[in-house]
Amino acid sequence: MRATVIYGERDIRVDEVPDPVLSTGGDAIVRVVAACVCGSDLWPYRGVTPTAKPHRIGHEFVGVVEQVGPDVKKVAVGDFVIAPFYDCDNTCPNCRNGVSTSCQHGGWWGADDEFGAFADGGQGEFVRVPHADGTLFATPEYPDEALIPSLLTLSDVMGTGHHAAVSAGVTKGSTVVVVGDGAVGLCAVLASHRLGASRIIAMSRHESRQKLALAFGATDIVEERGDEGIARITSMLDGIGADCVLECVGTKESMDQAIRSTRPGGMVGYVGVPNGGPELPIRTLFGSNVGVNGGVAPVRHYMEELLPEVLSGAINPGQVFDLELPLAEAAEAYAAMDERRAIKVLVRP
Amino acid sequence: MRATVIYGERDIRVDEVPDPVLSTGGDAIVRVVAACVCGSDLWPYRGVTPTAKPHRIGHEFVGVVEQVGPDVKKVAVGDFVIAPFYDCDNTCPNCRNGVSTSCQHGGWWGADDEFGAFADGGQGEFVRVPHADGTLFATPEYPDEALIPSLLTLSDVMGTGHHAAVSAGVTKGSTVVVVGDGAVGLCAVLASHRLGASRIIAMSRHESRQKLALAFGATDIVEERGDEGIARITSMLDGIGADCVLECVGTKESMDQAIRSTRPGGMVGYVGVPNGGPELPIRTLFGSNVGVNGGVAPVRHYMEELLPEVLSGAINPGQVFDLELPLAEAAEAYAAMDERRAIKVLVRP
Repeated sequence: MRATVIYGERDIRVDEVPDPVLSTGGDAIVRVVAACVCGSDLWPYRGVTPTAKPHRIGHEFVGVVEQVGPDVKKVAVGDFVIAPFYDCDNTCPNCRNGVSTSCQHGGWWGADDEFGAFADGGQGEFVRVPHADGTLFATPEYPDEALIPSLLTLSDVMGTGHHAAVSAGVTKGSTVVVVGDGAVGLCAVLASHRLGASRIIAMSRHESRQKLALAFGATDIVEERGDEGIARITSMLDGIGADCVLECVGTKESMDQAIRSTRPGGMVGYVGVPNGGPELPIRTLFGSNVGVNGGVAPVRHYMEELLPEVLSGAINPGQVFDLELPLAEAAEAYAAMDERRAIKVLVRP
Repeated sequence: MRATVIYGERDIRVDEVPDPVLSTGGDAIVRVVAACVCGSDLWPYRGVTPTAKPHRIGHEFVGVVEQVGPDVKKVAVGDFVIAPFYDCDNTCPNCRNGVSTSCQHGGWWGADDEFGAFADGGQGEFVRVPHADGTLFATPEYPDEALIPSLLTLSDVMGTGHHAAVSAGVTKGSTVVVVGDGAVGLCAVLASHRLGASRIIAMSRHESRQKLALAFGATDIVEERGDEGIARITSMLDGIGADCVLECVGTKESMDQAIRSTRPGGMVGYVGVPNGGPELPIRTLFGSNVGVNGGVAPVRHYMEELLPEVLSGAINPGQVFDLELPLAEAAEAYAAMDERRAIKVLVRP
């Protein structure tokens, strides 16, 4: 089969690789219908995190179950399934607490699983899925083609934006600032809107992203950053800042922006993968009672809550995809996101 | 009048100082009935934070209103009052949000207030209280002598222990670990108990403190620290750690203990003044979805909730005082706490 392989900085290729095979009894083979490129894939693409040797890449996909191992009970051949950006058994104590990203038996696409068997990356024709019953979430029936992009966001960005909002405690009437206008930040706007926030300030300088933020429920756009951005935000919010600030980038600057945009006693919900950023300034947080909560989003846990709204059309997070390419053009998909020509790119095998 | 003055490392004296005078219209003079020494007073006492020049010290007291300025409406001469460890107007946006420690017009005992007028430290015969209406909380009537110690804990330690529990999200059925067996840690045990925690593990090596922790509702005592302590705790809690961990010390070691005792998706509530400790390890927190919330406790806000239970005898946090001394022996009060001969010392002018 063909699958995407990263060889090094800005070197993405679609290679012929071995077809996946069932190996653990509880696994499944999924034929990928749609996959995509994640903002976090850009770290190795840009060489910020080095690539020691070529390896498979990708971790967001939806598809159809082609084969299942003898121990698989909950998903069946022919099911249309959404995969979270990790695998999990959904039965261990952490999964039961809703933190399936800390599954005691889970793993990551493109890595060896607990039995030493390889789980494919998601940007390919097929994926072997360990813990198929715990990992995969089947839709009630084969969905309309038009729903595929929104279903695909439940693999990562919509669930991750939702996690930022939940972690920051967004609820009815909350004032919210979203730092970051990538797909996750935009989904965080949408998530805050559906949770009932009364004011949602999106920080963005890009017209197309501003438009989508407003379509997703943002009440205000702030283009300024740093001290100017803080001054704008506090002037809009009682002179003190927001109840909830959603940090959806992962850099030193974005976390600083987030912490300083939060009112005393407020909460930063963060989901941006901290990319060598600094540690959190405890004395600043202590003095103002600003909390920091979040992390790698347990999106599998959120599918039950979010899927019905995607299927009904109540939310349409798939609008974050503004470019679609065939798998053969995976390299261009990365380049378009890297150069911010696209918010998020959908890839079809 | 006489008041406590710190001159430098381990140099505490009771000096004759000028009587306080009303100066802002909204202030009051309170005759101190009981005061005490705080764990945070030990940082300058030990020289960990240097004392550049002699200054007044103390920030926890209860007493009787002796004089009020012409603008004071809510407290009256003769009222028995509890003072939080800071002053606040209780009307600004931060106070209205319940974060009176971030009052836009507030200040700290022993410092100049917004008008440049001195607010006395609490360890003396009298205190000038800025923003008397916002700061002071009057009891319905003059309390029984036996209640004075518990009322005094509402100035700081009981409200601070409660803040740790609230910040960590302790609720009915929570599993809780308390790091720190000082007065705040013990009050955090009591606060967790009244909030309905199902399991409360107190980390303590001191027999008298262990006993009080058990009296306050701890279900288990763990004497081990570091890796051994973590191993004990995780083995007691489903192999994953506690829902809520209350950090009541403020050192590098205690915060590390707290973070590593928290289950994935759990929360650290911290109230120990970070004493030059390290910044928070964001990648560790991110990977396990452990949140960190808390800070300098808005105890004024909690008095309304806690006072009725103190007055009814439902809670008796005053048991943290295991030594009482006259004001003249303030130096011995500090030494007894520094050498851990006493958990907390009550001082009577």
